[in-house]
Amino acid sequence: MPELRKDPIIGRWIIISTERGKRPTDFIVEKSETRGGFCPLCPGNENTTPPEVLNYSSTSDHQANRPGWDLRVVPNKYPALVIEGSLNKEGDGLYDRMNGIGAHEVIIETPDHNETFTNLPPERMIKVFLAYRDRLLDLAQDPRFRYVMVFKNFGAAAGASLEHSHSQLIALPIVPRMISSEIEGSLSYYKYKERCIFCDIIRQEINQNKRVVAENELFLAIVPYAPRSPFEMWILPKRHASSYLAMDDDHFKALTAIFSECMRRLDTCIPNVPYNFVLHGAPLRSQPLDHYHWHFEIMPKLTMIAGFEWGSGFYINSIPPEEAAQYLKDAAI
Amino acid sequence: MPELRKDPIIGRWIIISTERGKRPTDFIVEKSETRGGFCPLCPGNENTTPPEVLNYSSTSDHQANRPGWDLRVVPNKYPALVIEGSLNKEGDGLYDRMNGIGAHEVIIETPDHNETFTNLPPERMIKVFLAYRDRLLDLAQDPRFRYVMVFKNFGAAAGASLEHSHSQLIALPIVPRMISSEIEGSLSYYKYKERCIFCDIIRQEINQNKRVVAENELFLAIVPYAPRSPFEMWILPKRHASSYLAMDDDHFKALTAIFSECMRRLDTCIPNVPYNFVLHGAPLRSQPLDHYHWHFEIMPKLTMIAGFEWGSGFYINSIPPEEAAQYLKDAAI
Repeated sequence: MPELRKDPIIGRWIIISTERGKRPTDFIVEKSETRGGFCPLCPGNENTTPPEVLNYSSTSDHQANRPGWDLRVVPNKYPALVIEGSLNKEGDGLYDRMNGIGAHEVIIETPDHNETFTNLPPERMIKVFLAYRDRLLDLAQDPRFRYVMVFKNFGAAAGASLEHSHSQLIALPIVPRMISSEIEGSLSYYKYKERCIFCDIIRQEINQNKRVVAENELFLAIVPYAPRSPFEMWILPKRHASSYLAMDDDHFKALTAIFSECMRRLDTCIPNVPYNFVLHGAPLRSQPLDHYHWHFEIMPKLTMIAGFEWGSGFYINSIPPEEAAQYLKDAAI
Repeated sequence: MPELRKDPIIGRWIIISTERGKRPTDFIVEKSETRGGFCPLCPGNENTTPPEVLNYSSTSDHQANRPGWDLRVVPNKYPALVIEGSLNKEGDGLYDRMNGIGAHEVIIETPDHNETFTNLPPERMIKVFLAYRDRLLDLAQDPRFRYVMVFKNFGAAAGASLEHSHSQLIALPIVPRMISSEIEGSLSYYKYKERCIFCDIIRQEINQNKRVVAENELFLAIVPYAPRSPFEMWILPKRHASSYLAMDDDHFKALTAIFSECMRRLDTCIPNVPYNFVLHGAPLRSQPLDHYHWHFEIMPKLTMIAGFEWGSGFYINSIPPEEAAQYLKDAAI
């Protein structure tokens, strides 16, 4: 059983994932991605993954766990957290722990092994965003879960261990520190100004027009003012909403359009760059929050986290966001 | 001029380091370490670094910036922050920035290119710890600086770009988030319990004796209860002190003994593992704090920061700290 443990000083949680017992000699410093060979995410190999929890298919008589799907969601075969059991929260002297209960799922974005997320046609990419919604709605039914972190790792350097285009989600029994920091930070701004800080950022960015990468009627994509990584981008809905689940059909279409544009701009600037993206939104079953604003953060993997970053929480970025935004805007797509 | 910028939502600072103008095509994803060839940190090449700010030598007639030193400290040739100038703190709409003023120095730990920190003889390693003290004392004189982050990157995977054994320090005009979180967290514990949380951790770890790696009269080395990385270790002084500068001669000797032991244990478990270590202590010119406790954190580089970690601030660790501590204790050194 994996375990969740809390650092008693700063409240950072970690997952002790013991599914695979490791000895010191088992640690390989640089994981290399398996290229070629057998792919468990390809059509025809459905039996090599756990049974799917969701599939989309254009075929009317499509059977679950068989080829013919456009997108499928399956539990991760090597989950960081396990779905069965109770939390058993307990203390150990001054320390706090609970069982590592959660869901860890893989969203297989396309049946085509050679298609990347960046190059997905819009009618396929929109299904990825719809799958996030459908899984969030389903997992919100489980009262043990407080938050679902949706994320994507692309490229070995960004942590992807499989080449076939996929994203992941982890349902957690606690709200992660990064999200609660954002919620607290935006609440303290709201208390002072009576305005959502993200809405203010959107207004200022559109006015200044120095860090905007792309814009449509419903979304804005910017390089943030204080990016951790070169070419970091945020995609924000222009209309205030604290949850991803507030989106209607038009939003899903507009999100697909701007996300696809941003990824293609990034890929033109730095072809095949490894990256992560993450969805930030309000906790599961939260009331709509006036002070918090859901968004995506896209982080190209171009720098290393070394001693200074570990120790300080500071990041060193070697390209000003205004220049990065200009490169992205100028990229031919 | 580099720039310091603050994320307005969670207060995270970043450094825009513009000393080297970069275009998108300049980003190389995996830096490879230069092995062999010319080493700017070797004796005889003193003129290829900026002039030293400190040197220790056993030779009575040793001249600055000439061979014959045991240890030297020089400004980083490619500094993240620059020493000359004023902070010019200012707003930009809802954003906050200041000039990137700071010191970035390299502590060259030995004249011998082939010696690693782990294998330094005690009489050499103690000089490294004394050099940290001497530089902290000197930099504390500059009222622009609030904190000095001392850290070491070993191995290309941990961010070291030079092979010759060295550590670094960055003097900052603000207290980094990681340190202020620790100080705030330990203050809230102190307010409730009237005890230092680190002192309580030391007592509990000695009693439980499940995560102790090494111990001597003045220091304790543990795998922390909630480690971010497999084989993470903390070295804590047993006698309460919030600042590294509180150490006397006996402490420097005992610190060297336990640090050397921990590094050799780690190296036996995972030979030549890349790692970072960082010194955490009270801000410069701070009063002694009853609630905060200086310490070192040693982080082997064995896992990758991917989307989940970026998005959540959670870490996934695949070996329970009790097992890691046992491996480290059992290692033949």
